[in-house]
Amino acid sequence: MKKAVGIDIGGTKTAIAAVTSEGRIVSELALPTNSTAGFADGTERIVRSVHTVVTRAGWPCEDLAGIGIGCAGPVDPVQGSIHNPYTLPGWEDAHIVRALAEHLGVPVWLENDADAALLGECCFGAGQGCDPVVMLTFGTGVGGGILAQGRIVRGARGQHPELGHLSVVTNGAECYCGTRGCLESIASGTAIGARGEAAGWIDARAVFAAARAGETSAAAIVADAVNAVCTAVWTIAHTVLPQRLLLGGGIMDEHYDLFAGSATAALARATQFDPKSVTVAKAALGNRAGLAGAASLALRAG
Amino acid sequence: MKKAVGIDIGGTKTAIAAVTSEGRIVSELALPTNSTAGFADGTERIVRSVHTVVTRAGWPCEDLAGIGIGCAGPVDPVQGSIHNPYTLPGWEDAHIVRALAEHLGVPVWLENDADAALLGECCFGAGQGCDPVVMLTFGTGVGGGILAQGRIVRGARGQHPELGHLSVVTNGAECYCGTRGCLESIASGTAIGARGEAAGWIDARAVFAAARAGETSAAAIVADAVNAVCTAVWTIAHTVLPQRLLLGGGIMDEHYDLFAGSATAALARATQFDPKSVTVAKAALGNRAGLAGAASLALRAG
Repeated sequence: MKKAVGIDIGGTKTAIAAVTSEGRIVSELALPTNSTAGFADGTERIVRSVHTVVTRAGWPCEDLAGIGIGCAGPVDPVQGSIHNPYTLPGWEDAHIVRALAEHLGVPVWLENDADAALLGECCFGAGQGCDPVVMLTFGTGVGGGILAQGRIVRGARGQHPELGHLSVVTNGAECYCGTRGCLESIASGTAIGARGEAAGWIDARAVFAAARAGETSAAAIVADAVNAVCTAVWTIAHTVLPQRLLLGGGIMDEHYDLFAGSATAALARATQFDPKSVTVAKAALGNRAGLAGAASLALRAG
Repeated sequence: MKKAVGIDIGGTKTAIAAVTSEGRIVSELALPTNSTAGFADGTERIVRSVHTVVTRAGWPCEDLAGIGIGCAGPVDPVQGSIHNPYTLPGWEDAHIVRALAEHLGVPVWLENDADAALLGECCFGAGQGCDPVVMLTFGTGVGGGILAQGRIVRGARGQHPELGHLSVVTNGAECYCGTRGCLESIASGTAIGARGEAAGWIDARAVFAAARAGETSAAAIVADAVNAVCTAVWTIAHTVLPQRLLLGGGIMDEHYDLFAGSATAALARATQFDPKSVTVAKAALGNRAGLAGAASLALRAG
């Protein structure tokens, strides 16, 4: 049985886990990321936590196939460095792969966190045995990743394509991404919550509850989000044409059936491919996807 | 110098060329496809034409690296078979790779024609040295292809993703693809021509001429097409994030600057990737792209 460590670095929290080749998490801990204290401080605390996690798992460090990191992007997976002033200020150009490899003496890999979660689902979750796979994650924002021919699809200069900003509505709301009417601007928790607040609801969850209770203005907000997801799914089916399209994140944890039902009905009308060849499915691993997927970088290699 | 034969099979015409490893066409001929006469008849005429083309090039058949075919899809590149009752009736389930390999004694490859044209541009034209590359071709319809990590991106069950039908306009015109407001339904020659006819112009070319002359209703049709292309380019930049996005086909041969100028301006507003990392360029090889790209299947292999 191969053994690896998965690390999931977010703006607030960093999770670290000992993961088996079956994707099972044997031990796990979380620490504050606290990037503003600087990268040397972060490295030291992460190294200490890796030792703790493998010790608790009863694994000698020498037994590790390696360490995989999923990190809030932008990251450079080839150089092994983090370039995220937005949510990891103080860690500019942090060469985390080199730093951890030097301190821990094992191979280290780095991916964007959305791609790590996608890999987790493909190796151990709802994307197993499928190719291509696209995953869309609906939380505060909308993120995603694409796997084709067994590999993460990288864009120009290795950049991660930000699927949450594909265009879905003509002349929609303006987004920080630089256009109007992108998926995130309509179907993210933030977007649903903001429109809800303007109509008198406290947050996105309240909007969904009111829509279910038959409140017309809440139902309109939810319908717009559902239509936006259907359009995005249509467009993805005509660009990547995935065998499996995974919907994940907090919104899908609670409302998957609503979104997936409409998206599947839209795909069934497609004439340019066999609609039965594309299936929509719910992401299965939740927050574990990122940790397991990060570990899979080491488990799949060597 | 490696030598190969490229074959470009369309609904009406089949072109066959002797192509060098630099992508140079040494000899070429065309024959009617005439698929309704059946596949045995088609095979026999193609085999004879391949012999003619290599003889005219002064190449012994034994010197060929192989034969590459680009064919109007759907095709199955893995099985080497054609499944296109729409524009190749009478050739259902034609195992063309097996048939030509048996008759000619050389290796044979098959790709969708849009993917063959993309390969041609990537090997010998405006996509050289770039990865990923996306090509959109605007003619009677709108087609396209995606190359990533050096390979054609295939969808579920090896199907070719029909990029022309990604969604660009909310509640647009209905399309045979199964949705409303896809790229082809607004920016194809057919779509521009149909809207033009309704407004009194004879065809798409007349619409572009009238728009340039300042006719308001023609200008509106062209503006809609330009906006549709901009939206499609935006969406492609947020899914595949190509290093190079090629625009080709009859419409771009004449109006590339109009479309590319707007698309480039839209991309310059993007904040989720470095806009300088994505360049829009005009397809360079025209009809030769399909022949050279088909031949490249053999030239790149072995």
